[in-house]
Order: sequence, then C-alpha cells, then structure tokens
Amino acid sequence: MKALVFENIHTLPNYTDIEISPKENEVEVNISAAALNHRDIWITKGLYPGLVPGTIMGADGMGWYLGKRVVINPGLDWGHNERYQSKKFRVLGVPDHGTFAEKICIPQSYIYDAPDHLTNEEVAALPVAGVTAYRTLFTRAQLMQGEHVLVTGLGGGVALMAALMAKAHGAKVFFTTGSNEKLQKGLQLGFDGGINYKEENSIEKMAEQCGHIDVIIDSTAGEGLNTLMKLCTFGSRIVLYGGSLGKINGINPQPLFWKQMDIMGSSMGSPSDFQAMLDFVAKHRLHPIVDSIYSIEAFGKAFSRMEEGSQMGKIVLSLPQ
Amino acid sequence: MKALVFENIHTLPNYTDIEISPKENEVEVNISAAALNHRDIWITKGLYPGLVPGTIMGADGMGWYLGKRVVINPGLDWGHNERYQSKKFRVLGVPDHGTFAEKICIPQSYIYDAPDHLTNEEVAALPVAGVTAYRTLFTRAQLMQGEHVLVTGLGGGVALMAALMAKAHGAKVFFTTGSNEKLQKGLQLGFDGGINYKEENSIEKMAEQCGHIDVIIDSTAGEGLNTLMKLCTFGSRIVLYGGSLGKINGINPQPLFWKQMDIMGSSMGSPSDFQAMLDFVAKHRLHPIVDSIYSIEAFGKAFSRMEEGSQMGKIVLSLPQ
Repeated sequence: MKALVFENIHTLPNYTDIEISPKENEVEVNISAAALNHRDIWITKGLYPGLVPGTIMGADGMGWYLGKRVVINPGLDWGHNERYQSKKFRVLGVPDHGTFAEKICIPQSYIYDAPDHLTNEEVAALPVAGVTAYRTLFTRAQLMQGEHVLVTGLGGGVALMAALMAKAHGAKVFFTTGSNEKLQKGLQLGFDGGINYKEENSIEKMAEQCGHIDVIIDSTAGEGLNTLMKLCTFGSRIVLYGGSLGKINGINPQPLFWKQMDIMGSSMGSPSDFQAMLDFVAKHRLHPIVDSIYSIEAFGKAFSRMEEGSQMGKIVLSLPQ
Repeated sequence: MKALVFENIHTLPNYTDIEISPKENEVEVNISAAALNHRDIWITKGLYPGLVPGTIMGADGMGWYLGKRVVINPGLDWGHNERYQSKKFRVLGVPDHGTFAEKICIPQSYIYDAPDHLTNEEVAALPVAGVTAYRTLFTRAQLMQGEHVLVTGLGGGVALMAALMAKAHGAKVFFTTGSNEKLQKGLQLGFDGGINYKEENSIEKMAEQCGHIDVIIDSTAGEGLNTLMKLCTFGSRIVLYGGSLGKINGINPQPLFWKQMDIMGSSMGSPSDFQAMLDFVAKHRLHPIVDSIYSIEAFGKAFSRMEEGSQMGKIVLSLPQ
C-alpha cells in the first residue's frame, strides 16, 4: 500500500509503498481520512524524541472496521493511572506505524465508534485535538458552567476544539490570536470576545471584554503568561498543553497563593478522556473546524500550510478509497 | 486589660491598656497563650494591607470558654466556597482585634475544642501554621501515602507542621534549610532526608536522597523553584503558600505539561480545613514544634527572634492567668 513514511529529518516524508501486517493482538482498519498535527512538523525537523526511520507518520485517523466508521485513539499505552501516563506512553505515528496510510494495524482497544453527525474529515480532525482539549478543560480545569475561559492562539486545532467545547458547556469564551483574519473568524464562530495580541493595549481590551478569567487554556507559555495571569480571579486555573514560546518568567507568587490559583500541565489524555470526549462531541453535536482537505498525494501542500501557521482548524488528508 | 496594640509602622506594638467588649454576635474567650507569625512582623513594618492603628495584634491564640480549653480559627469570613475565600476574608489580628491580649471577643463559630493531648503553648502554635499546612498537603495536593514530599525552609511554623503532617500520613519527607543547626534538628525529628541549600551541589544531594519528589510545599518561590522542579516526577504537585524570594523565573513548560504537573497556590484554609486539621492532629497525636515561650511583657524578645529567622518552630507568648 501507499503511505507517508518518515525517513530523514529536515525533509518531507516519502509517499511510498510499504507493507504492514497485523501482529497477534492487532486488527486492520482501512483509513479514509487522517489529520496533521504540529507534532508531524516537529518529527520532520527532528525536534521530537524517539524517531525511527521507516515508520508511517500520522496520529489522527478515521476509517472502517467491520463495516463501521471508526476513529482511532492515538494515545498508546497510557496505563492505569488517570492522573498521568505510564512510561511506555507514546503518541501514534512514529515510532509506531501511524495513520497516513491506506490502512493501520492496531489493537482493537484503540478503535472507537465515530460520532454519527460528523463527516469523515471531521472525525479525522478529532482525536489529538479533541482528547487534549477535553482533558485540559474538564479532567484538569474542572470547568463549570458560566465560567470565563480564555483560549490563546485560536487558529490551532486544540485551541479551537477547547473553545467550542467550553462554549457548549455553557462557559463564556474569549480568545487571543495573532491575525485579524482569525480574529474575525473566531468572532463569527460565536465566541464572546477576542483580541489580536499583536495590537497595542490588547490586554486592556481583553480585560474590558471579559471582566475576569477563570480558566486559561494555553500552549505557548513564555513571557506572556504572566500578563495573561493578571486577568485571573480567585480559584482560577491556567492549563498549559504546550510551551511554544519557551520558559515561563516573571510570575508573581502573591496572587498565585492568595487567589488559590493553579497552573496545571496537561498532555493528551487517558482512554477515559478519549471516550468522554467522543460522548461530549456526540451529545453537543459539535463539529471540529476543518481548515482544508488535501489528497494524501498532495501532502506537501498540507505540510506547508501547517508550517506557515495560517490555518484555522485542522488540516486533513484524504485517502484513496 | 493589657494587650499588644498596633499603633505605627516601623516600631514594635505598644503593650498597653485597652478595653474591648463583645458585640451582639460575639462571646469572650480568656486567652492563655498566643503565637507569632511572619504576618505580625510584616504588620509592624507596614508590609501588610489594611492596617488599622489601635487594633490588637495576633492571629494565633488559645484560651478558655465556658470552662473548656479552646482554640480560635483565625480565618475570618472565609465564605461558602471551599475552593477559595470570599472578598471579605481576612486573618485575625489587625484590622480585627487579635489574640495578643488577655481576652478576645469573637463569634462563637470561630471557637473549636482544643486537642486534649497538647499543652496550652502547643495549642496556640496550631491555628495559622496548622490550617495552612493541612490545606497545602491534603485539600490542595491531595497527598497520598508513600509519596515523597519536599518541604522547603524547615524552620518555619507552616513548614514544620507540613513535614510532621506528611510524615504522619505515611509520606516520605525531605526538607531544605539554610542552616546546619536546623538540618541536624530536622533529621533528629525523624524526617527521611534534608539538605542545607547554601551548600554546593545540594540539589544533587537531595536527588540522591529522595530519588524523586511528588509534592513540594514551598513559601519562597523565586529563582529556586525551577531547580526544585527538576526533582519532580509525573503527576507531581508544587504548592506555594508564600513567595518570600519574589518572582518565579525560568520555568520550563515542557516537563510541566508532559509530566502533567501542577503548581498550586494556597493560602490559609476554610472552616472545614480548620476542623479537619484539628481532627488530624488529634488522631495522629501530633505535637507542633514550639521554638520558645515568652511572657507577653517580653514580646520584644519574641519579635526579635522571629525577625532573626533562627527559630525552629513557633514562638509563643504566654498570657497572665
């Protein structure tokens, strides 16, 4: 079959022939759609640990198994502790064969029924972004109805998913973005307020819009976190699921302890988180935002779009049927 | 009656005559012993908000009410939310009349039975340190048996109380201190390991002793937190109840999110925390560490000892009976 195979760092993967067959505990799923994550870019740049040349890339995927539409949980070997993953935990797609292929061989326990109300491409957009967003908001921050949520960097898959989920849960949702185009798109999606953080006095504008913030969902960290924290009220939770802007500096401990705040780290999610995410998406009939769809042969364009960072939502690869 | 009254910043309080009488909802407690907190030093230096000249100082106190030994909960108007205090919350003793007096007038709801196994001075040492330590360990960090706890700055009242409570709960307890004398005293108390953080390679020494840390209890914050975090494993919680060394810098977000860590702020505790703390102290027959006892007339020596920072445990004032 054809698949996108990781071979070397600093180049795109090869779209090439590769044969795989199920191990004793595995079944075959025919992949219909897969989606890109930042992780895929980091892998091609050699910025991810445990890279094994010759393995099929891709964490997000949906397809067919025994005549049913299914979605794959990309969090492998989480283990039995809900609080954190085991040492064996890894994300699907390098070093294990992933979803950028006509089929995948995987233990049946990672296969879940796809939500009926979603297109194939929307299902493929769910796994990594959905489980990450769900865990940050609910398992970690324990979001309550009516709370004020601030999601940073709205264009990203997790950020959009978190914003949609928070809104569906009855929260007021505010966001930051670095582009006026995304600002307009975010407001059109019905969120309660947003700012372009590159503009002057953007924090003051956000403060006017939101009054206060109870929960921040962020994947940047860096110098800006301290500024965002000034919006936070008593009992607020800041959940970090990434740190693209590097080290956190300048955090004033006084509001942190006096306001009984939490800064929480979160990464991916457990099988329970994954099932709860699917149930939440089905219950609220949420649609993940798909930015664009490319045939797998045009993966180069998909990777470029991801690297440029101009996407609003998930970039999906369509597989030949 | 005689009491220690806050009059001006940058001087010690006045030991002087003052009359107080119970308001409609208050009862009188005859104070037998009171204890100092860092807060009392900050008040005399003008480093605490809401200072009202002419008010009696003191947050920690025990005494007699209706023939029973009682202890006073110093957390006023916490409110109904366990997660954080109300806007009306304040610590007893400036701007409300406090415990450094022959009697206090206070609503009955703040009066709790004193644990039977403790001396008067030990009871007076409990309230602020006990409720703060209890909340950091149990309400916030949800400490589990067998976990590894690191308590920084062991000489302080909260730090010692947290270390004793964690040990009683079945945790392994490690500590840092800035003096070899306190290091020896801490080891004599039966804790599992300790370092003098002023010595070279102290973090490496701690790593050898503890292997890993699950929970850090800290009131310093500052530049050092980042170093301590390197000891932390998956699912670890860092609870800050103060920030005497200032802003937190240099936190690497990657281990924070990948290890699903928490940095939690905590301050004082709710009435439920206070009752649970008393129950815990009684059940485990814990004795808070009393550094020294002064008659209230010798309060100047007590304040000096607090300011020098050489104490190991609580500094107690004894009231005339």
